[in-house]
Amino acid sequence: MTASNSEYRHIPEATVSRLPVYLRSLLDLSEQDVTTVSSENLAAETGVNAAKVRKDLSYLGTYGTRGVGYGVGELVDQIRDCLGLNRNWRVGIAGIGNLGRALVNYKGFSERKLTICALYDSDPEKVGRPIKVGDDVLTIQDVESIRGDVGALDLDIGIITTPSSVAQDVADRYVAGGIQGILNFAPTVLRVPEDVMLRKVDLSIELQILGFYVGRRDALDRAVEAAD
Amino acid sequence: MTASNSEYRHIPEATVSRLPVYLRSLLDLSEQDVTTVSSENLAAETGVNAAKVRKDLSYLGTYGTRGVGYGVGELVDQIRDCLGLNRNWRVGIAGIGNLGRALVNYKGFSERKLTICALYDSDPEKVGRPIKVGDDVLTIQDVESIRGDVGALDLDIGIITTPSSVAQDVADRYVAGGIQGILNFAPTVLRVPEDVMLRKVDLSIELQILGFYVGRRDALDRAVEAAD
Repeated sequence: MTASNSEYRHIPEATVSRLPVYLRSLLDLSEQDVTTVSSENLAAETGVNAAKVRKDLSYLGTYGTRGVGYGVGELVDQIRDCLGLNRNWRVGIAGIGNLGRALVNYKGFSERKLTICALYDSDPEKVGRPIKVGDDVLTIQDVESIRGDVGALDLDIGIITTPSSVAQDVADRYVAGGIQGILNFAPTVLRVPEDVMLRKVDLSIELQILGFYVGRRDALDRAVEAAD
Repeated sequence: MTASNSEYRHIPEATVSRLPVYLRSLLDLSEQDVTTVSSENLAAETGVNAAKVRKDLSYLGTYGTRGVGYGVGELVDQIRDCLGLNRNWRVGIAGIGNLGRALVNYKGFSERKLTICALYDSDPEKVGRPIKVGDDVLTIQDVESIRGDVGALDLDIGIITTPSSVAQDVADRYVAGGIQGILNFAPTVLRVPEDVMLRKVDLSIELQILGFYVGRRDALDRAVEAAD
C-alpha cells in the first residue's frame, strides 16, 4: 500500500510543524503502554496549549471522546498517515562526518520509516568505506554519484551534513538528479529551484530558546531577591 | 556587562521560538553585507508570513521604517539581547559520541555565544581523552563529575547526547548539581523538577515536515496527471 496524504491539503503550516511533536509524545506514551490520552495530557507533554492541541487534531478529522480522550494508537496512525510516514521515505546523506554518522545511528529515523539508502562524501579517505546502517552495511560513495543515484536508487530526500563551504555544491548535485526535498544541516543559506522543497535544521535554535527562559528566570530571581 | 532580558517577559512562546529563526537569517544577510531588510524579505527567508514577522518584531519594541525596512545590525542586537545571547552561556555536553562531537564542532554554537566548558562520558575508554573545542582543548570527564562541576564551572545549561538508556541518569546528575536548563537530544522522555527548564531536540522532526510537503506534492502531481 502506498499511503497518500492528499486529503490533508488544507492543514496550516504551524499545525504541520506540530504534528511530529505530538507524534513523538504519542510514541513515548505508547512505549509506556498508555492507550488513551486527553488533550490536556498531550498539551503538558508537548508544551502546546490544550485548545491548540484539539484544534490541530481536528484537522485530522479526529475529535477524541469526551471524558476519555484520544486513542493513542489511532492518533499515531492518523498522524503518520497525514505526514506520509506510512510510506517509506528513501533518504541519502551527504557529508559523513560526526553529524552524518550521528544521523545514521539515530533511532528516531528508523522508527519513522525514514530509510537511509545512500551515504556520500568527497573525502577520498572516506569514499569506499563500509558503514553499518541498522542491519545493513552501506559503502560511502563519492558525491559525484549523487546525480545518477537520485533516480537509480529512487531517493526522495537528500540530507546535507557537509561543511558550509560545499553545501551548495552538494545541493546542486541533488537537484540535478531530480530530488524532491532537501534537508540542510549546514549553517548556511542554500538556493534551490522553487519546485524542490528545502528545509533547514539549526542545532543551536533550541539552545537559544532555552537561554531565553533560563535568562528570564535569572532576572525574575533577581527581582524577587531585590524585593525581599 | 551582563545583559538582562527581564524587559521581555511578556513575549508569547511562539514568538520566542521564531526569534532564533529570524536571527539565523539576519546573520546570513549580515554576512552578505546586507544592511536593511523588509518584513517581506525576512518572511521569504524564514517561511513565516510577513504580518507575523512584523508582529513578532514589535515585541522587541521595533517597527522598522516604512519603505526602508529594518536595520539588520540593529535587529541582530535586539534579538540577541532578548534571547540573552549578549551574555555568554556556559554549556556542558554529556555523551561524546558522534552527536556530541558534532555539537562540539558546530559553528552555529560559538557564533551565538554558547561556550562549551565541559565534556562528559561514562565510557572508561573515552574519559581522559583530549578533545579540541574551538581554540581550546577539553579533557573528557567521567559523568560522576557532573554534579560538582555545575557549580564549580558555573554551567548554565547541560546538553544530553547520550543513548536513551542513560539519559535520565545524566539528567539527574545535572539536576543534583543545580543546573538551570537541560537540552535533551536523546529520543526519550526525561523527568526533571519544575524549576529546571527542559527542552528536547528531535532530529527527525524537520525530516517529517519535509515528508509531508513532498508527499502532498506527489499527490497533487498525480491528481493533475489524472485530470490531463
